[in-house]
Amino acid sequence: MISVEEASQIITAHQIDWGTETIPLPLANRRILAEAITADRDFPPFHRVTMDGIAVSIDTPITEGLFRIEGTQYAGESPKTITSRGSALEVMTGAVLPSNTNTVIRYEDLTFSEYGDKRFAALNTNVNPQQNVHHQGSDRRAGEVLLQAGIRLGSSEIGILASVGKSQVLVQKKPRVAIISTGDELVDIQVTPLPHQIRKSSGYQLAAALQEMGFASELFHLPDHPESLEKKLTELIQNFEILILTGGVSAGKKDFVPATLEKLGIQKQFHKVAQRPGKPVWFGVRAGQNAVFALPGNPVSTFACFLKYVRPYLLQGTLAPMKAVLSEKIIFKPELTYFLTVAASFNEEGRLMATPLKGSGSGDFANLLACTGFLELPADRSEFTAGEVFSYLSFR
Amino acid sequence: MISVEEASQIITAHQIDWGTETIPLPLANRRILAEAITADRDFPPFHRVTMDGIAVSIDTPITEGLFRIEGTQYAGESPKTITSRGSALEVMTGAVLPSNTNTVIRYEDLTFSEYGDKRFAALNTNVNPQQNVHHQGSDRRAGEVLLQAGIRLGSSEIGILASVGKSQVLVQKKPRVAIISTGDELVDIQVTPLPHQIRKSSGYQLAAALQEMGFASELFHLPDHPESLEKKLTELIQNFEILILTGGVSAGKKDFVPATLEKLGIQKQFHKVAQRPGKPVWFGVRAGQNAVFALPGNPVSTFACFLKYVRPYLLQGTLAPMKAVLSEKIIFKPELTYFLTVAASFNEEGRLMATPLKGSGSGDFANLLACTGFLELPADRSEFTAGEVFSYLSFR
Repeated sequence: MISVEEASQIITAHQIDWGTETIPLPLANRRILAEAITADRDFPPFHRVTMDGIAVSIDTPITEGLFRIEGTQYAGESPKTITSRGSALEVMTGAVLPSNTNTVIRYEDLTFSEYGDKRFAALNTNVNPQQNVHHQGSDRRAGEVLLQAGIRLGSSEIGILASVGKSQVLVQKKPRVAIISTGDELVDIQVTPLPHQIRKSSGYQLAAALQEMGFASELFHLPDHPESLEKKLTELIQNFEILILTGGVSAGKKDFVPATLEKLGIQKQFHKVAQRPGKPVWFGVRAGQNAVFALPGNPVSTFACFLKYVRPYLLQGTLAPMKAVLSEKIIFKPELTYFLTVAASFNEEGRLMATPLKGSGSGDFANLLACTGFLELPADRSEFTAGEVFSYLSFR
Repeated sequence: MISVEEASQIITAHQIDWGTETIPLPLANRRILAEAITADRDFPPFHRVTMDGIAVSIDTPITEGLFRIEGTQYAGESPKTITSRGSALEVMTGAVLPSNTNTVIRYEDLTFSEYGDKRFAALNTNVNPQQNVHHQGSDRRAGEVLLQAGIRLGSSEIGILASVGKSQVLVQKKPRVAIISTGDELVDIQVTPLPHQIRKSSGYQLAAALQEMGFASELFHLPDHPESLEKKLTELIQNFEILILTGGVSAGKKDFVPATLEKLGIQKQFHKVAQRPGKPVWFGVRAGQNAVFALPGNPVSTFACFLKYVRPYLLQGTLAPMKAVLSEKIIFKPELTYFLTVAASFNEEGRLMATPLKGSGSGDFANLLACTGFLELPADRSEFTAGEVFSYLSFR
């Protein structure tokens, strides 16, 4: 039996290159970028007016002044000029700074007056040169790398891609994901179960978690029967790159999943990890083609294994690690990593405090309702003190 | 000019009831539940075996024993019985506990042997009564409320809904969302801009942020021209419940947005909030029909206002508040709430540490790349010390 750390390393070492594809920008959110993105021009591309007001030319701070208004520079117009140093142009936020000016004075700092057909603005306060101008190239220079290949795109990266004109983006292909439940006690959700049956639920839960990560998935159910398991898995391996199975991986007499997967050429990388819940977890690959996660069937075990192993695999390490503070003492004697169900929230000190939830074992998924994630208590000791900090797997 | 707190209160007070609809469970993730969900049966619905092994009947802890195996109780089968107290049934995880047994002994704790056609299991260790059984109703009783109306569904709630057979779920209707950019300096992303033009980017960024919240949206662009603004907004108000406009809300000469919205019957609730960036933000409603957010056009201002005002409005207060620790001293003199761009990550103490990013003003959206969110520094003072904790608006 390997440790949780070894299991994570094995999974990371078996990333498969799914290839790349070019897709329209509006579909690229949450995808992994497969090209470096450079600035096609300076950011900002021109000396940009940041306040509505007037543009003037001054060399030193001034406390008074009267400027003749020669016209208006709107956003979207090519740059105008003033005819003399005492003149000004009205300027609108987002406009180019007129070419022979260097400073913008806000409307709030001016009093306007008219003499015949001439308009003047008098300064109410002090002004420094260069004020209210966002200088060309001050954020980024043309040619600078803005985004590296391998990052996961979020809303602000989508904004950057738009601004440099990437209407089409090269991203990594997404593997197709099948979620496959097993277990003869499971019935469809529309069905009223017999007393000894329960409805399928983990598949829906995993599909929702995958959706939040930007992955579509399809749900399947297979009976605890070796021939039909083999037949159906043969098909699924052809049609999906990622298989997430639930159930059928323990020591039970109908736990045919590991043997069937190996028979179909999915090479076992590990089976059983020193953890609770989720000890029977199985992982295998078919080189360059499939990654298969066979997770224990109890919904809490399934979910802990999903968050610990499947999520980082699919997100290729782009998930920011989280830590949380254990809020009360926990004793856990087995030499296993303990994925403790907790409700975590920020306290007044900005610490993420994780309160253990009383659970009655790995099948207790109603307790996941109050739960925001799992705190990962290491295997090498049995006492965990209030105030200690541990890795935290969040799902909210 | 109102405070950020007042603006938030006004927005909260103008929630609109969009009605409810019944949708299939797989579409319900991230939706707001509009019915209370009760357990249709006990959780678990039967005394459930939690380990593969044998089921026996014992009244006190035992340290040795030999049990005759009478058969197997698989998951999904109706309960069997043992014929005498010294007998046992093999049981598989997820099975019903055989009716006259009370304890499960794991395979790991047993040694099996055969005598003729009879099989026996000898105990290797000590066993307590009730071990490895998840008792009927121990998590939840039939009739108990599992989920309250008004919560936002996530993956674990989807799992619960499946388990109680809710293949169709009553949720709040989602408003249709239009994102409308204005500004004559903006060109399409496919276009090579002239020196004084820039590409539209905020709309794509907001659409991506909305997608992460589970909202679809459509993008529009309107020119800085009062008649065409009015004509197009008239249509958009009919076809979309939520309008998010960017640009055209400042004191500029072409800032026609607020006046046009009011002309169309969108009642202004506020215009201008004591904050930086984002001061010109405008909010209005048409009773029971539209909520309109007119945000400043600089991409960083737009995004701060979106996170502070639009996101909580659409999520109806279901977002867990976050706090982070300012990592270095900040001086900010204006009497404005300061939305400071920061990069936040967890330190070894489980504190979310927010490092201010040097920015060159509200137009500097390339700096959003390193940024993970905004720290909200209150308006009533000008010095903020390293180690202080503030509200944090996260977008990663």
